[in-house]
Amino acid sequence: MKTYQEMSRGELLKEKAALEAAFEKIKARGLALDMSRGKPGADQLDLSMGILDCLDSKAVLEAADGTDLRNYGVVDGIYEAKKLMADMVGTKPEHVIVYGNSSLNIMYDQVSRAEIFGYCGSTPWCRLDKVKFLCPVPGYDRHFAIMEDFGIEMINIPMTEDGPDMDLVEEYVNHDPAVKGIWCVPKYSNPQGIVYSDETVRRFAALKPAAEDFRIFWDNAYAVHHLYDDDRAEILNILEECEKAGNPDMVFQFCSTSKVTFPGAGIAAVSASKANLDDIRKHLTLQTIGHDKINQMRHAKFFPDADSVRKHMAAQAEIIRPKFELVEKYLKKEIASHGIGRWVIPKGGYFLSFESVPGCAKKIVAKCKEAGVVLTAAGAPFPYKKDPDDSVIRIAPTYPSMEELEEAVKVFVTVVRMVTVEKFVEEESDRQCQKGA
Amino acid sequence: MKTYQEMSRGELLKEKAALEAAFEKIKARGLALDMSRGKPGADQLDLSMGILDCLDSKAVLEAADGTDLRNYGVVDGIYEAKKLMADMVGTKPEHVIVYGNSSLNIMYDQVSRAEIFGYCGSTPWCRLDKVKFLCPVPGYDRHFAIMEDFGIEMINIPMTEDGPDMDLVEEYVNHDPAVKGIWCVPKYSNPQGIVYSDETVRRFAALKPAAEDFRIFWDNAYAVHHLYDDDRAEILNILEECEKAGNPDMVFQFCSTSKVTFPGAGIAAVSASKANLDDIRKHLTLQTIGHDKINQMRHAKFFPDADSVRKHMAAQAEIIRPKFELVEKYLKKEIASHGIGRWVIPKGGYFLSFESVPGCAKKIVAKCKEAGVVLTAAGAPFPYKKDPDDSVIRIAPTYPSMEELEEAVKVFVTVVRMVTVEKFVEEESDRQCQKGA
Repeated sequence: MKTYQEMSRGELLKEKAALEAAFEKIKARGLALDMSRGKPGADQLDLSMGILDCLDSKAVLEAADGTDLRNYGVVDGIYEAKKLMADMVGTKPEHVIVYGNSSLNIMYDQVSRAEIFGYCGSTPWCRLDKVKFLCPVPGYDRHFAIMEDFGIEMINIPMTEDGPDMDLVEEYVNHDPAVKGIWCVPKYSNPQGIVYSDETVRRFAALKPAAEDFRIFWDNAYAVHHLYDDDRAEILNILEECEKAGNPDMVFQFCSTSKVTFPGAGIAAVSASKANLDDIRKHLTLQTIGHDKINQMRHAKFFPDADSVRKHMAAQAEIIRPKFELVEKYLKKEIASHGIGRWVIPKGGYFLSFESVPGCAKKIVAKCKEAGVVLTAAGAPFPYKKDPDDSVIRIAPTYPSMEELEEAVKVFVTVVRMVTVEKFVEEESDRQCQKGA
Repeated sequence: MKTYQEMSRGELLKEKAALEAAFEKIKARGLALDMSRGKPGADQLDLSMGILDCLDSKAVLEAADGTDLRNYGVVDGIYEAKKLMADMVGTKPEHVIVYGNSSLNIMYDQVSRAEIFGYCGSTPWCRLDKVKFLCPVPGYDRHFAIMEDFGIEMINIPMTEDGPDMDLVEEYVNHDPAVKGIWCVPKYSNPQGIVYSDETVRRFAALKPAAEDFRIFWDNAYAVHHLYDDDRAEILNILEECEKAGNPDMVFQFCSTSKVTFPGAGIAAVSASKANLDDIRKHLTLQTIGHDKINQMRHAKFFPDADSVRKHMAAQAEIIRPKFELVEKYLKKEIASHGIGRWVIPKGGYFLSFESVPGCAKKIVAKCKEAGVVLTAAGAPFPYKKDPDDSVIRIAPTYPSMEELEEAVKVFVTVVRMVTVEKFVEEESDRQCQKGA
């Protein structure tokens, strides 16, 4: 089969007509499908229902240290929950503070605290003329939204298959004191599913920041979210590596059970050096009476050890892996064969990142919407919502059912082909005009 | 019986010797008692255990509008929880945003947001030379701690039996644009148990602030925390009054179920005008994925209507009212009879505020500690921990058992008498010296 690049103008026009006809037929069906949201499906959530029985009115609501879980106290989380969260990201309980249900909230607070108070005695960022963050792209839109809220300048860092372009990261971090942070999703990155290599992690740990208060925002959101139980990616422990490299205070690691148990009712944590945690605790004590210790214990009971987490995530993988494989099948068949797109096949996480021919993403998303299939907005995985190549589309296959997903993917690949052919035809016309002119 | 003021030097010295001997005996017992903490006792918490059975693995975890409570979404709280919290403070669900388990956290965030972003488009406070808050005293130490954290200047406002001295409040608020807020606990105030009169509430609503972004921080922490089910204080609805007075955006009202169900695992809310709530939602959407909707529903199920809340609080009152009455009995018998202290008898809330002869509070607290009875630090209910008269001591009778409380109160009244007599003797000596000199 010829790729679109190899087709003659006549062949392209024929293909275009066929695809546009197919598109009209799809539109007529009035579909309402959604591949935009990184949400677990109801069947995944069903696997966690048992957590609601872990503590009932007959339970003794006490932590091992005697703390009454129902009452005030314990601002940084009960030990049992610290242990669970530490195990999830491979660190020690004493390096962990457990919060409520949202790791995003912890990240936001960390930025907010830097703005007002500064880290560990450094100058508050609100007093500086300029604060910059590095943003590996494509990345997580909610990270970038926090930056926009605080008016922090974002700098794009291209991703490689081993993680962010570390030459560029070192260049910025080690020479520009206005660069105060970098956003990382080190395992099964959102949206590409890339796993940072050991060398990448070590180069992160060995940074020599120009800013004394530079911090790596290590959002280990998918630490245990493997698609293949027998092929689980492991990354180096960033806290340990930073400590070894003489940079113990350079990183905040975030994690949560949002996509482990219930996104609406999980627990979240930050892990960091003692100096950083003490700095957090100093303000946290004034900020809150503490977080929900009963829900912390519910999680600790539901997951008595690391192996129980692994099994639980393997059961979830059974549900979502076929969805990823379905998307990959159609991409391979309908897109790869025509040579008009790229993607990484992820082994975990919640997303695929589809990269179209440059200049097509917005139109693909718009046309899919016209046909009743909602995708994440083009540009969303970039700072300021600007994809410089207009080519990245985040695909979230987990929430729809297999049937809905298959419908949606079929629409998607048809639209990708149509928009790409239209683009090629248009470009060809332009070239003809230029020749003629 | 003579009051201490009426005693001769000889009588005072005799009394002093007797009390000091009693004190030594108490010390020798090695007590370890605590009247410092505004925490419910375990028996109160037992009354809420049923909430843990409201949602189990067999429950349908859906809100009335179809929202899956387990998944992402609904950043400002489910309707069912809004209704519950609205009923608690007498407002409407559409004026409510429901958060996680800590109203303190909401208050902190409101101050933090003003510092960084400003309210509804006003200048962020961090850009101003000076920001001041009015603090009715005695008041809640955690309010003042937030102010200190942000470097906001606090101005003491004396309390009257009808609430804060409104002449002074109007003087400051209506003329000083640096005054951006005031902290109020309008019902069963912490620590005095004072209930704001209708006139006080109306005068609050009718303020004409010099600052466009002035806000009343209306911490309605004890809205349903009556000690007497047949004598429940009601205050005017501040949101309605502000609206009537043409100041709809001037108030944030806070409340929580911390001392209704479980302090560690309740739900909290802010209520305000639509403009204020929209301003909050704008940032909240970036700040968090939303709060624990399952716990919100647990509360809504446990309290199907306002009457169920009333009954639940009446049952709690049965437990804590005798504790308050016990303290009052000893204060009346041992203190009032000697004319050496004042207090308001509260009809709700969690505290009594004891006012000693000026200059005695620190010593009373220190001596109680020596005797094994921990009280809230003297000065704690004041900005900068400075009680100008060194006379206010907050008593928290709820947490100890009746037996422990009785022991503790006996120690307390003995110490109050001893320290006061010592003070009188000392002053008398000073007067003699001055006469002699």
